[in-house]
This record gives sequence, C-alpha cells and structure tokens, in this order.
Amino acid sequence: MKDFTEWFERVLTEAELVDTRYPVKGMYVWLPYGMKLRSLVLRLLRELLDQTGHQEVLFPLLIPEDQLGKEAEHIRGFENQVFWVTRGGGADLDVKLALRPTSETAMYPMFSLWVRSHTDLPLKVYQVVSVFRCETKMTKPLIRVREVTTFKEAHTVHATAEEAQKQVREAVEIYKRFFDALGIPYFITRRPPWDTFAGAEYSIAFDTLSPEGKSLQIGTVHYLGQKFSKVFGIEYLDRDGSHKFAYQTCYGISERVIASLIFTHGDELGPCFPPSVAPIQVVIIPIPFEGRDPLPFSREVEERLRKAGLRVELDAGEQRPGEKYYKWDRKGVPLRIEIGPREMESRRVTLVARDNREKIEASLEELESRTREILDRIEERLKQRARERMRERVVEARSLEDLTGEGEIFRLFWCGKKECAERLETQTGMSVLGQEVEGVEGNCLVCGEEGKSSLLAKSY
Amino acid sequence: MKDFTEWFERVLTEAELVDTRYPVKGMYVWLPYGMKLRSLVLRLLRELLDQTGHQEVLFPLLIPEDQLGKEAEHIRGFENQVFWVTRGGGADLDVKLALRPTSETAMYPMFSLWVRSHTDLPLKVYQVVSVFRCETKMTKPLIRVREVTTFKEAHTVHATAEEAQKQVREAVEIYKRFFDALGIPYFITRRPPWDTFAGAEYSIAFDTLSPEGKSLQIGTVHYLGQKFSKVFGIEYLDRDGSHKFAYQTCYGISERVIASLIFTHGDELGPCFPPSVAPIQVVIIPIPFEGRDPLPFSREVEERLRKAGLRVELDAGEQRPGEKYYKWDRKGVPLRIEIGPREMESRRVTLVARDNREKIEASLEELESRTREILDRIEERLKQRARERMRERVVEARSLEDLTGEGEIFRLFWCGKKECAERLETQTGMSVLGQEVEGVEGNCLVCGEEGKSSLLAKSY
Repeated sequence: MKDFTEWFERVLTEAELVDTRYPVKGMYVWLPYGMKLRSLVLRLLRELLDQTGHQEVLFPLLIPEDQLGKEAEHIRGFENQVFWVTRGGGADLDVKLALRPTSETAMYPMFSLWVRSHTDLPLKVYQVVSVFRCETKMTKPLIRVREVTTFKEAHTVHATAEEAQKQVREAVEIYKRFFDALGIPYFITRRPPWDTFAGAEYSIAFDTLSPEGKSLQIGTVHYLGQKFSKVFGIEYLDRDGSHKFAYQTCYGISERVIASLIFTHGDELGPCFPPSVAPIQVVIIPIPFEGRDPLPFSREVEERLRKAGLRVELDAGEQRPGEKYYKWDRKGVPLRIEIGPREMESRRVTLVARDNREKIEASLEELESRTREILDRIEERLKQRARERMRERVVEARSLEDLTGEGEIFRLFWCGKKECAERLETQTGMSVLGQEVEGVEGNCLVCGEEGKSSLLAKSY
Repeated sequence: MKDFTEWFERVLTEAELVDTRYPVKGMYVWLPYGMKLRSLVLRLLRELLDQTGHQEVLFPLLIPEDQLGKEAEHIRGFENQVFWVTRGGGADLDVKLALRPTSETAMYPMFSLWVRSHTDLPLKVYQVVSVFRCETKMTKPLIRVREVTTFKEAHTVHATAEEAQKQVREAVEIYKRFFDALGIPYFITRRPPWDTFAGAEYSIAFDTLSPEGKSLQIGTVHYLGQKFSKVFGIEYLDRDGSHKFAYQTCYGISERVIASLIFTHGDELGPCFPPSVAPIQVVIIPIPFEGRDPLPFSREVEERLRKAGLRVELDAGEQRPGEKYYKWDRKGVPLRIEIGPREMESRRVTLVARDNREKIEASLEELESRTREILDRIEERLKQRARERMRERVVEARSLEDLTGEGEIFRLFWCGKKECAERLETQTGMSVLGQEVEGVEGNCLVCGEEGKSSLLAKSY
C-alpha cells in the first residue's frame, strides 16, 4: 500500500464493491457485492440501535430554506456545502429546497409536534439515508463524497441535561461496540470548540487511522443542549405543570465505516473481510484433475455449509484454480475450501485462511464445526492484528522535541487552550483531534498547565 | 369509509404509520410503526427478487441534465415533473442535476460500461430508493407524492428480444406473487400506446381499486426493446463475433402497495394487517380485576409467543382495557389476547380476531399452535374477502348501454383502437386501463371488430 489512494480505488474496483465512474463528481455506484457488505454492516448497526430503544423513521430529503436557516450556528456551518433545488415542474420554486446535509432541521419541527409531555420523553429515533454535501476538496469514494449514501443519523430528545448527557455516553458505548465488532480501531476525543458540530454544545468523535497515516473521522456524537429545542419550540409539560425546553443529542455514522473496514483489514491484494460481515464467508474451488469431476463433492460441501447458515459460494466457472484463488482473495473472502482429487478420494477438504494462508484439513464429518472454528479464529486474528498495528503507530510524545520525529499520530498532554493547539499544529502541520474521552491527566506540553491526554494527527 | 380521503388520512395518523404534517407539499414522514410495516413488505419483495436472480445495487440520486435528456421520448414524458438542483456550495452549478424521477438515465450509462460480452448477460439489478416527481395535481400520502420514498425499480439487460420479453413475463409473475402474498387484488392490463411509459415499447400495469372506486396503478413492467440501448450504447459482443445492441426491461413498485394494503384490508376503524406483514401480530391486553395482577401470566404468554418467533406486544399501560382494544384495533393488529381473572385461574387465554371479532379460547399448552393457526386463518380470510369484494365490484358490460348503469370498474371487449377508447371514455368519464394480459377475446363494444377483454375505470 505505498500509494493509498491508488490502492484504495483499485481495491474498490477489483473487489467489485463500488463503481467510481458515475458521471457526477463525488458520487458513486454501489455494486451488488458492495451492497451485500453494506447491508450486513447496517444490520449490525440497526441491531445495536434497536436493542437500546431506538426506533427507525424516515424523513423527507428536502428541507425548506427557512427551516434550514433557523438555527444560526447550524446554517453558518453548512451553508457553503448545501445543494439547492430551485426549480420543479418547469417553474422556479417559491421556496428553495435544500438537499439535507444532515436532518436536524427536517426532524426538529416535527419533534415539536410530537413532544407534548414528559411522558413522551425520551424520544430516540434514527434513519439511514443519503445526505448531500458539496465538498470542494478532492473527493474520494466512501471517504469524501458529495452524496453520503449510508448516513445513519440518530436524534434523541430528553427532559433534562443529565439525561441527554447520559444518552451521549450510551451513544459512545453503542459506537464502541459497533467498531469493536468490525475490528476497526479508534480514538475517542472530545473535539475542541473550533471543531464542534455546527449548533452543538460539544462533540465527541471517533477517529481511525488510514494506511497513509491520516486520521479519518468515522463517527460523531453531539450534545445539543437546548440550542435547537429553543429555536424549534421543542417543549414539554413537566410533572410540576411547567413547560420546559427539551435537551437533545444526535449522532452519526457514514459509509466511511466501510472504507475503514476495507483498509483496516486489507493487504496488497485487497480487503479481507471479517467473517461476521463478509458477504461471502467461504468460497469453494473445485480442482479438476485427469478428467475427474470434483463438482458433485463440491456441491455436497456447499449444500452442507449453506444449511449450517454460512454465506458460501461455489465457483464452478471456467477459470483455472490459481486464477480463482486470486479473484476471491481480491474480493476479501476470508476462507477458501479447495476440493481436488485427493480431497474427493478421502472425503476431506482443505481450508485456506485468507489472512495468514494457514492450511487446515478437515473431514466431511467435522466440516461445519471446523469451518466455524476457523472463521472465528480469522475474525479474532484480524481484530487483534488491527489493534496491535494501531498501538504501534501511536507515538507517545513527552516533549515538543518528540514531535519532530517520525510519527503518524501523537498522543500528548494538552491543556485545551487554542494558542497551545496552534503551537502544536504549526510545528507539526497536523491537527489537534481533541482530548481523549477516556484519557488520563497530565501537564500540557506547550504551557505546562493542567491538561489531558490528547491526539495530534494529519486529518482528511 | 364514506369519504375515502378523510378516512385514509385519519387512519395513517391514528395508526401512527405516517405523519402528514411535514412542511413541504407531497412529502411525508414515516413513523416507527409505518417503517416496520414498510420493512416487512420490502423484505418480501427483496426475497422474491433475490430468488429470481436479481441483485441489489444503489445508484446516485442526481442525474446530469445531458444524461436525463438523451432518450427523446423519455425526457418528454418526465420533463414537466423534474426537480432541478441548480446551486451547490454557494455557486451556480455548471451542469444542472435532476433529482431522479426514475433511474434509467442514471443506470444505463453505467450498463454500457458493464456489458461487454454475451457472457455478461442477462444483467438483472434493482434498487430501493426515493424518486422525485413534481406532481401538480392534489397530493395524497402514499398515493400521489412528490417524494416517492419506497421506489423499488428493477432494470434488466438481455441479448435478444425474446429473452427480454420472457423477462417481462417473469416480472409479471413476481408481482403477482407479491400482491397475492399481501392479499391485494389486481387487474393486469397492457396499457394502450398513449399510456405507455416514456421510452418503452409497451407497458404492462397492475391496478387495484380504491374504496372510492378509482383504479390505482400499483406496479408496472416495461419492455424497452433497444430504445435505450441504442442511445446509451449498451452493446455486447455476441458468440458470432458481431456487436449487437442489447434489449432491456424495467419494472417498478412504490409505496402505493402500502396504501393498498391499508385500504384493502381496512374497515371503519382502520387497517387490519395480514399477519405475514403485520408489524405486531399479537397484542396482549391484561385485564386487572379486584386487585388481582394479570401481568405475570401475561408476561409468560408474551415470552412464549416471542420465543415462537411471533411479533408480539404486551400492553401494560395505564389505560382501561376497552381503550386499549380500540387503540390496537386502529393500529391494525390482527389478533388480540385478553388475559383477565378467568384466564389466570384456568391458565387459558382468550384470542380475539381483529377482522371478524371471533373469540377462541386456548389452553397454555396449545398457545403457540393455536395462535399460529388463528393467524393463518385470519390471513386466509382477509385474502379471500378482498378477492370476493373485488369480484363483486367488477361490472361485466356486454353493450354500451350497460355502461350507463352504476359501476366502479367495467370489464368489456375493446379492439385496441384509440377512437373506440375515446368513445368509451367520453361516455363514462372513465379511462381505458388497457386490454387484460390474461384476458379473453371478443368483439369490441364500440366498433364490433375483434378485441380483447379490457378494463374501464376512473383513475387517479
């Protein structure tokens, strides 16, 4: 992966995940194999949200200009990125309609109708939709796009600040479980005030590190306080008979999680998907030899694995076995089963793990159990390798001098002040991501005052 | 259902399916309960498509003006309905971008890259997306909308006209199975040339009849021939070494299927969802009496049904049982279980069917089997009732005089000629839907020439 951009776009194409040739900048086509991966990842995310009392909804794409502009900080943060619908049915529209860049201003006018009493709270909803941002920087599939096709945004409403802040912690826990399940390592920081979501009181973000050593924001959790509830009139009747403005949070995940999944568990050849979300968990390659037909036995193996609930594919195509190995390796299938004359004879199979090329033999009797066991082992290995690699990449900087050395991401103590962040950023050309939410205390490397462990990295 | 519009909007609100108060005309919010129904219906549709070799994809929402305009008939059919994005990131766009009204012109430029050889064919893909049409007529939730939020569009490419026409027949079969599974009765007609999809050679449509006696188009299947393939350059290398333009089809379903599901199986009170897609199949209502607590036994029943794989809800709220009955009836839950002192004593339950109010007792031992059996019976009853009602509403007209009588939908022989259709339409104020695909032959009521059984109805 010398050139990450080149590698990444090649992998998307060769693995047939996304087609990058759609004729609008920053917009891409999800191919069938990519869609299956996306569905499996979304299923995991939906399960985590449903288990924690979130309900799925679907709001319209278009937001009237006056609604989008209601919260002053919010519109300031987004106005330069909005796509506008100005014409419809052959005429100019009376009110311009924004393609949602995010849905606060689509949802909150409705929340003000839904929330009446303290018994309506908490309200916890989410949707999975496309959002649009007219990115002016260089676009990159799944990473910097103009149509975010896989935006899971959750929005919650609570009676008190305490309950809303507790929700922020729940959201952080949900995202930790989500990224842990995918084996994507992350840092959790509280973003500095100048990098807070437009309209939020504070923002917590999950970042991972790309192969080219840049931090990539893969999840955010925002505490909105009463900023939006006051503007949109989200009020409830409390037990004591008084009307109070509610407290809100929102949190989001995008298709960057798919990008991270690809590069975290990838090698020169392409991705290696964790079995839990791999669109195909096992590929069976029959190896014909001296006119003996391995297909019947291969079909038997396929049928058994399918019945065992595994996502399995039998490649009965015309290509030579070597070509097939290469093809499925590039598609990131974590486990291959080879069936040649020796296997047919002994009614055994040879299993080959995509990640470390380990070869294991199994008898037909133990086929399902061994396959599951090896898939579990691959899953665990991928996660552990990703964690370790990330750990190795973090440089703990104990002085400003340490920042002059090589390093993709630095952990250091920082006080939270803007002038100290600027000093760090100027010296390194990197950005302060923020103080770690689960960090430890220590003295700021710049001013020596009380601080907290923080992260510094190049970012997208 | 005297006033269908009033009834329909009330039901959507009371059943908490859709919120109709979003501040943009023709755009609505799917509420959690509606989303669950929508997901179950989509799951059924996806299964039918996956089983028949269709693969899910996802294309961008925005289509450049030059692509949308490439096929002349197509753009003529849609240009008055298109919403245009003209600004982005604070500047006018160089190329206007259409919100897709349908995705032929988004997909087919990519198909021309994907299809190279006869071995790439057939190509069968679908997506479930929002499409946008600037309807100028009166909008109506789920029926006439500006954001069609649940548009399943399938697009296929074939080597020959025969294969494409065979695909048309497959699509018709898939939709028949889909609507049959939902118990929605339909008529299948070949639309007359003046009502053919813009850019198609011919169109086949599924219509159902609304309670106010209007035909509602709920599914369409189009044979495109080579019209688009020639414009977008979808060519393949055939076995004989020659390059040939491909043949195409497309077919779609929208959220009108949800509307039909609601009104087909509805009564004054609201919908009654077929158990196969009901978001909640069974609601349990505990009935407290003289201080005895029915909750523990109710929880036991709930737990058992949930374990049996049923979608069950225990309403342990504060309302009186009668209020709860009313509430869940309006939400269309097909089966209610009442648990009062008598049931607690005898460890039995009373099951009440939503459709015919039938009451059945069951012991705890037979709880799961009886519940399933009654749900199956409700499902069958709903379907049968819908079929019979529809049959009763069709008036077989054997002469032009028969058309002067009362009737919501007439079946008659028509030759296919425009002047005869105009005569029928002028006389009745209705529209000719088309000749029945599975119809019988007979002489045209107007001109006496050879014709086929056809349908005439008021339409939306």
